[in-house]
Parts: sequence; structure tokens; C-alpha cells
Amino acid sequence: MIIKGINDVPTAEVNGDNIKDVKKQVLIGKDDGSDKMIMRLFTVQAGGNTPLHTHDFEHLVKIEKGSGIVIDSEGEHKIEPGMVIYVKPNEIHQFKNNSNEELQFTCTILA
Amino acid sequence: MIIKGINDVPTAEVNGDNIKDVKKQVLIGKDDGSDKMIMRLFTVQAGGNTPLHTHDFEHLVKIEKGSGIVIDSEGEHKIEPGMVIYVKPNEIHQFKNNSNEELQFTCTILA
Repeated sequence: MIIKGINDVPTAEVNGDNIKDVKKQVLIGKDDGSDKMIMRLFTVQAGGNTPLHTHDFEHLVKIEKGSGIVIDSEGEHKIEPGMVIYVKPNEIHQFKNNSNEELQFTCTILA
Repeated sequence: MIIKGINDVPTAEVNGDNIKDVKKQVLIGKDDGSDKMIMRLFTVQAGGNTPLHTHDFEHLVKIEKGSGIVIDSEGEHKIEPGMVIYVKPNEIHQFKNNSNEELQFTCTILA
């Protein structure tokens, strides 16, 4: 069993096209021996965003802190703590922090 | 994309040997089209516990609210919000709420 504090998990800047002020922590992943699923925590600064993109794997998302919007093919949807989001495989999606505070969400994927 | 509030997700009592005052919500699962991973939220009342058991699949756990202990083959470990736990396949484990408040944690498994 591996038990750890989120604050002890290293943080990395996420770089790439159309990504702004996004940091990632791998809360549970391959380094922990988890070879089937990876739980990540994303922190998006005020005004920041993840890329508008699509890929063939799904996301299980839980909003942890702050607020913002998630964009899919139907438009914008407000997100805040107490909400979960299932992003289907091959579904276009983007997370934007249009607030004045940090937005945090966990995003679990297959390893 | 499926977006929902945790409070809108049905709650079911978890019954079984050596389980006390545990409720489960399937936050994202097969009913949402998620056929590879399932994110559940467990609520353990003060004095309650999950079973001491083992199985061949892993758990990705994040403590959301309250406090308690998790037990593995090495003994008891305190748990509280801000902590994540990787329970390996075939590892014995039990969650106990030894506090006076509700304990909540998400637990993601393969579907």
C-alpha cells in the first residue's frame, strides 16, 4: 500500500500548443506500481486553459477546487467542486479557468 | 461528455460481512458509458468500516472528507483529506472511521 500527501507529490508545468498556465501532479501512477490506471491532479491558474483536443482514451474527472468551464462539441458548461465529468474516448474537450482563483481537478486515465 | 453533481448521484447502502455503516455512490460508471474504469465515492459513518479483505484488482483512493485509518498488513495508518492511497492487487486492506464525523473517499477501479 502506498499512502502519500498530495502536497508531497512533485508538480510539473504542462507545455504544448494552446496550453496556458497548467500544472500537473501524478498522484498515483507507474512509479507507485499502478500499471493500469493513473490519477493526475491538474492545477489551472486564473486565465489558464488545457488544450482543445481529442484522443482515443477516456477521462474520469472530479472538480476539486475553484471554478471554470469545460468545453465540448455542444458548447461551454460551468464546472465547480462537487461535480464529476466523464469525457468519452474521441470526444473533443477543453478546460478553462475563467475565474480569479486556481482551478483544480483530478483526471484519471488508463495507464 | 457527461457532467453531473455528486449530490444527484444515487446512494446505496453497502451490505456484507464485516461492513458497518458504509454507503456507496457510483460517480462515473457503466451507466455513463465508462466501460473501462469506475469511480465510486464511499461514505463511512462515525464508527463504521469497510471489510478487511483482499481481491485481485487495485484501488486508487483519494480521501475527500473526515478522517480515519486504513489498515494493511503492516498495521494502521491515519488518513485525512489531502492524501491518496494506492492499494495494490491482492493487498489486504480495510478503512475504518474512528472519528466523530463522516469519512468520505473516492475509490477508482477497473470496470
